[in-house]
Amino acid sequence: MTRTAPPAAVPGRVGSAPPVVPAPASDASARGAGADLLALDRAAQDLLFRAARTANTFTAEPVTDAQVAAIHDLVRHGPTALNGQPLRVLLIRSPQARQRLLPHVSAGNRAKTAGAPLVAVLAADVDFHRRLPELFPHRPEAKDWLADPAGRAAQARFNATLQIGYLLVGIRAAGLAAGPMAGFDAAGVGREFFPDGRHEVLLLVNIGRPGPDAWQERLPRLTAEEVIRTL
Amino acid sequence: MTRTAPPAAVPGRVGSAPPVVPAPASDASARGAGADLLALDRAAQDLLFRAARTANTFTAEPVTDAQVAAIHDLVRHGPTALNGQPLRVLLIRSPQARQRLLPHVSAGNRAKTAGAPLVAVLAADVDFHRRLPELFPHRPEAKDWLADPAGRAAQARFNATLQIGYLLVGIRAAGLAAGPMAGFDAAGVGREFFPDGRHEVLLLVNIGRPGPDAWQERLPRLTAEEVIRTL
Repeated sequence: MTRTAPPAAVPGRVGSAPPVVPAPASDASARGAGADLLALDRAAQDLLFRAARTANTFTAEPVTDAQVAAIHDLVRHGPTALNGQPLRVLLIRSPQARQRLLPHVSAGNRAKTAGAPLVAVLAADVDFHRRLPELFPHRPEAKDWLADPAGRAAQARFNATLQIGYLLVGIRAAGLAAGPMAGFDAAGVGREFFPDGRHEVLLLVNIGRPGPDAWQERLPRLTAEEVIRTL
Repeated sequence: MTRTAPPAAVPGRVGSAPPVVPAPASDASARGAGADLLALDRAAQDLLFRAARTANTFTAEPVTDAQVAAIHDLVRHGPTALNGQPLRVLLIRSPQARQRLLPHVSAGNRAKTAGAPLVAVLAADVDFHRRLPELFPHRPEAKDWLADPAGRAAQARFNATLQIGYLLVGIRAAGLAAGPMAGFDAAGVGREFFPDGRHEVLLLVNIGRPGPDAWQERLPRLTAEEVIRTL
């Protein structure tokens, strides 16, 4: 079971959000159809997916370096092609760094970026292949398979994005809310924080405890019938 | 806690794999440093990340449509930009469909693809924006933000890849092993199974219970110090 309740269940929060997973009675799936077929217990299902929400406001409670390290220590085990692990994380913690970031964030995302206790800039290291002799030691020639810069950048982007998926789950595993944001100038953030030109910035993520009115009602999800075909 | 033990702990499996998370004693992180800082309980941490492994062999036990639907029902709650949910899943179940897939898989991946009880072809719907009026109903104009085909395809790829990250976690949440494979001809698989030309095939994933000698020793992971910087 979870050591702390899912965020939405924290009692006494100021400006508490509407109940999570407010499924209409007609939507059996949103109540967790099939939940009993999973090996993962229901509390963990809720913590990571069913009751977890993208937060748009945050409390002032800090997110510590130890928490971030614990999240990384969990999700670093997720699979990547050739075990390449191209994701790199820049944590924006100081007011000075925040001021450098904000001009590159879209107007609609600026207030929540300014208010989050921690913002992570997530980028793909397009030269991740340099580490392959250590990370994929049984095939030392793997580094040479990635000599083509365009193909390597595409592989860096794809696998770093998979890792972002794991990371968002990991942030929730820490009992925190994530606020992923695509509305920003990725090239501008890259120039500002990765001047080596060897990183592609992919996403910003606000991290913290959800604040007042952190989210609206959950948006609809596609059904299995709409997403899955079988041959 | 988990309703069933993580795969590697199932007793009596033929050809049982080496112990999972065989961390050298010198690697404190691989034993779960910071695990107590997470809200997710340790059994779930093990099921999803620490003890979970990419499987290269599978038992003959079928993966049912109900299991796949239960996995989807869990991970469909994961966040995507504009709630766009571009991931589409084609399950290869029949021998006929398997025979259509195998010629496009690299030689090194063919045996495990042939032996897995179920193979999922994961693709991004590059016309996912057509659904936005339903999926992002408070901003009906969002569909028009994605009029540019190249930008829309990039957004489809990125968000479908995030969803693949959630899906790989979800497969493990079902007590199953995933075997993601990038070694295949994505364009060829696209022509074979998505002849509309409106889908980009991103990954193949074998799904099932791990079979004999399903994996080698876990490969090294980058440390927090190597991945995370703070400003």
